[in-house]
Amino acid sequence: MNKKMQLYNRLHKLNTAQIITLGFAGVIILGGLLLWLPFCTAPGYHTSFTDAMFTATTSICVTGLVTVVTATHWTLAGKIIILVLIQIGGVGLISLGSIIFISLRKKISLRNRRVIQESYNMDRMGGMVRLVKKVLICVFGAEGIGAVCYAVRFIPQFGLAKGLGYSVFTAVSAFCNAGIDLLGEDSLAQYVADPIVNFTSVGLIIMSGLGFVVWWDIWDKIKRVIRGKLPVGRIFKNLRLHSKIVLMMTLILVVGGTVLIFLFDHGNPESIGTYSPGTKWMASLFQSVTTRTAGFFTVSQERFSNATYMLCLVLMLIGGSPMGTAGGIKTTTVAVLLLSLKSNLQGKRDVEVHHRRIRDSYIRSAIVVTGMVLTVLILMSMLLCAAMPEAPIEDVVYEITSAVATVGLSRGLTPCLNTAGKWIVILTMYLGRIGPLTLGTAVTVRVQKMPADSHLAEEDIMIG
Amino acid sequence: MNKKMQLYNRLHKLNTAQIITLGFAGVIILGGLLLWLPFCTAPGYHTSFTDAMFTATTSICVTGLVTVVTATHWTLAGKIIILVLIQIGGVGLISLGSIIFISLRKKISLRNRRVIQESYNMDRMGGMVRLVKKVLICVFGAEGIGAVCYAVRFIPQFGLAKGLGYSVFTAVSAFCNAGIDLLGEDSLAQYVADPIVNFTSVGLIIMSGLGFVVWWDIWDKIKRVIRGKLPVGRIFKNLRLHSKIVLMMTLILVVGGTVLIFLFDHGNPESIGTYSPGTKWMASLFQSVTTRTAGFFTVSQERFSNATYMLCLVLMLIGGSPMGTAGGIKTTTVAVLLLSLKSNLQGKRDVEVHHRRIRDSYIRSAIVVTGMVLTVLILMSMLLCAAMPEAPIEDVVYEITSAVATVGLSRGLTPCLNTAGKWIVILTMYLGRIGPLTLGTAVTVRVQKMPADSHLAEEDIMIG
Ligand SMILES: [K+]
Ligand SMILES: [K+]
Repeated sequence: MNKKMQLYNRLHKLNTAQIITLGFAGVIILGGLLLWLPFCTAPGYHTSFTDAMFTATTSICVTGLVTVVTATHWTLAGKIIILVLIQIGGVGLISLGSIIFISLRKKISLRNRRVIQESYNMDRMGGMVRLVKKVLICVFGAEGIGAVCYAVRFIPQFGLAKGLGYSVFTAVSAFCNAGIDLLGEDSLAQYVADPIVNFTSVGLIIMSGLGFVVWWDIWDKIKRVIRGKLPVGRIFKNLRLHSKIVLMMTLILVVGGTVLIFLFDHGNPESIGTYSPGTKWMASLFQSVTTRTAGFFTVSQERFSNATYMLCLVLMLIGGSPMGTAGGIKTTTVAVLLLSLKSNLQGKRDVEVHHRRIRDSYIRSAIVVTGMVLTVLILMSMLLCAAMPEAPIEDVVYEITSAVATVGLSRGLTPCLNTAGKWIVILTMYLGRIGPLTLGTAVTVRVQKMPADSHLAEEDIMIG
Repeated sequence: MNKKMQLYNRLHKLNTAQIITLGFAGVIILGGLLLWLPFCTAPGYHTSFTDAMFTATTSICVTGLVTVVTATHWTLAGKIIILVLIQIGGVGLISLGSIIFISLRKKISLRNRRVIQESYNMDRMGGMVRLVKKVLICVFGAEGIGAVCYAVRFIPQFGLAKGLGYSVFTAVSAFCNAGIDLLGEDSLAQYVADPIVNFTSVGLIIMSGLGFVVWWDIWDKIKRVIRGKLPVGRIFKNLRLHSKIVLMMTLILVVGGTVLIFLFDHGNPESIGTYSPGTKWMASLFQSVTTRTAGFFTVSQERFSNATYMLCLVLMLIGGSPMGTAGGIKTTTVAVLLLSLKSNLQGKRDVEVHHRRIRDSYIRSAIVVTGMVLTVLILMSMLLCAAMPEAPIEDVVYEITSAVATVGLSRGLTPCLNTAGKWIVILTMYLGRIGPLTLGTAVTVRVQKMPADSHLAEEDIMIG
């Protein structure tokens, strides 16, 4: 056997988890080295190796925590590299998630004929290349629409070239849930009362937070409605279980979060108390949506009340839905845990929802993903406290929660991190990004190989 | 049917969970009304209804958070009532837990002959009255020894009568994990360098934290060693699975906690940095042990570093072991979750430990108990933040964690609580006390009625 074959075989033996782990690490190191090159740093600034790696990690993991101000620290070349890294991170995550979900389903289909009958629209496409193509079309389409909406505001404000650049950057950053902006230190704070910027951002964040599999499922049902094969009122009922769970959880979290933030902070002059009622609601909505892993903000995080702080920690940890660019333990994971809790309290053996049984493997994955995220959160918070004894504990916990759930919100601690602190946050962002994806998948796949006694029909969802 | 029969039947239909829920509430209200009587309050002080209920709850739930200084606010009569309430709470919890554990086992024995062969020593006693008697002997025995040890220090310091009273009160409070003291606002801070007070407290807290079932199991094995039926080296191997898990977890948590606290704070002049090395280790040990639901302290909680703060939150949440007076989600619950995580990551179907399979019902109970404690923690923290917007968030989280895990440590917030805040903490203490016990039991019992496919032999443990 020649050496090329040996390498091929060795690469072939790598499992999905190892490919993801190594792939992300490789792109991060490459991106970090690129950003470290002198022509990326604006004149008068200096980029340390740590800051270059930090920026690469925050871009590829689409986290959004930044140690240096993106707008002023980097040259145009640096900004373009950051944009590309964000796009690679975002598209990579979406494609990976979708591929895993589909191959997961295929494996089961082979041994369970019943499941094969509920076919995705995607099935007919076949092949990963076509899937990635479809992902790219959707990503660029959505980002294009977003950029046009932003341009309505940014071109009059910044002129054609700069305004267009800002629009594209912000749209990509919002859709990929990166939360990095070119507007300076205050993110979107100057647009707190601007409906165009608010609703464009909220729209992009929520849409990408759903995950494409949900889009395609909804689109499939809409086509059937157009063809007259499905009444409009039955769209939701005909969606796949995964889509139903994602849509319900997103609705509950966005609306619930908005209402609670409004209640907690509508009288707080530090945050939104001085705004008009409409702006108060809009700022509450923005905060509720952005904590679910976007990372932009219209109100500085340290200004909110303590009750909102607690709520935001929870929203950040839950994050968005799988197979998108969102982080956190994911809506489906929380739904599975809550449903499992409910059925246990009712004394039922099976975990049921919408007339489907939740497969045991998903419950196990949910426990593993949640356990992993909470463990990283606790250990890394403790480590960062030890590395920076003077940093306020609430800022440390916010920072690490934000990093592990790849949110990108901060109470101002990120630029003050010392070198040890920066590496702790880099590690946390990396673990928070690849952990839920690889662990959730690995456990689900392994457990599904075991024989199961089923009662109700089962249906695939994705965890982590 | 006459009315008496109807009432009897109705009472008979109450399940264990309802009896515990109503029983605790009843004793709390009764105790609160008693403490509200004028002769309980020292001259010059005033006891509000809220403070009376708070004190009754903290005593019966053996939590230890106090809104008024026990030493000065209450008369001798008030202090005796508090002592009795603590004793009722402590003995009640131990007896209830042991009874549930034994009846749990009996139910399974009826349908599983294999389990019946591994018999407890307790089996031969039979009857709840004799069990409670045995509990009382152990409780009073341990408290007596503790009081004698404390007396060595307290009688020379306070004189015979007062010293003896303090010794008894402190011993009862330590053994019942109540953490209420008569020494003023600073708990045991004046004895931070005193080995007698330190080791007596640590000993009482750890011993009662194990739970009596573990004591009896160890005692049984020691008797077999004395009779020459068991070599000394095989004591641990012959212990029941429940005892093994409890002992292992306790060792890991106490030693791990002590070492980490020492590392985090040995250079912190605010907390233990100025003490001699021996005192540093002793104070670290005391803090590690007291967070596991005792509530005494030798160093004010707000003086510790942020890293230790994080660690203490985790230790408080884990708490002690079931069937004792400790609170929290319990060592066995955490062990079951960790073992489940491990087996899922290894791709194993069964959760195994020490050549035993952990029954599925325990994993379900562990999820329910942990989910319930974390939910109460998050909701109540948010509520307390909303009720007291000015209170520092880290103090609020510490207070609620302390209340839900019935620890009794505070960063000084308890006396500053407003009326709404006091009732939030009262509710949290109550839920934290009865929640794990009733929910854990209810789920375990219900799930065990379902048919199970077993591979390895199973063995009882207790969750929550
Ligand atoms: K983000
Ligand atoms: K306590």
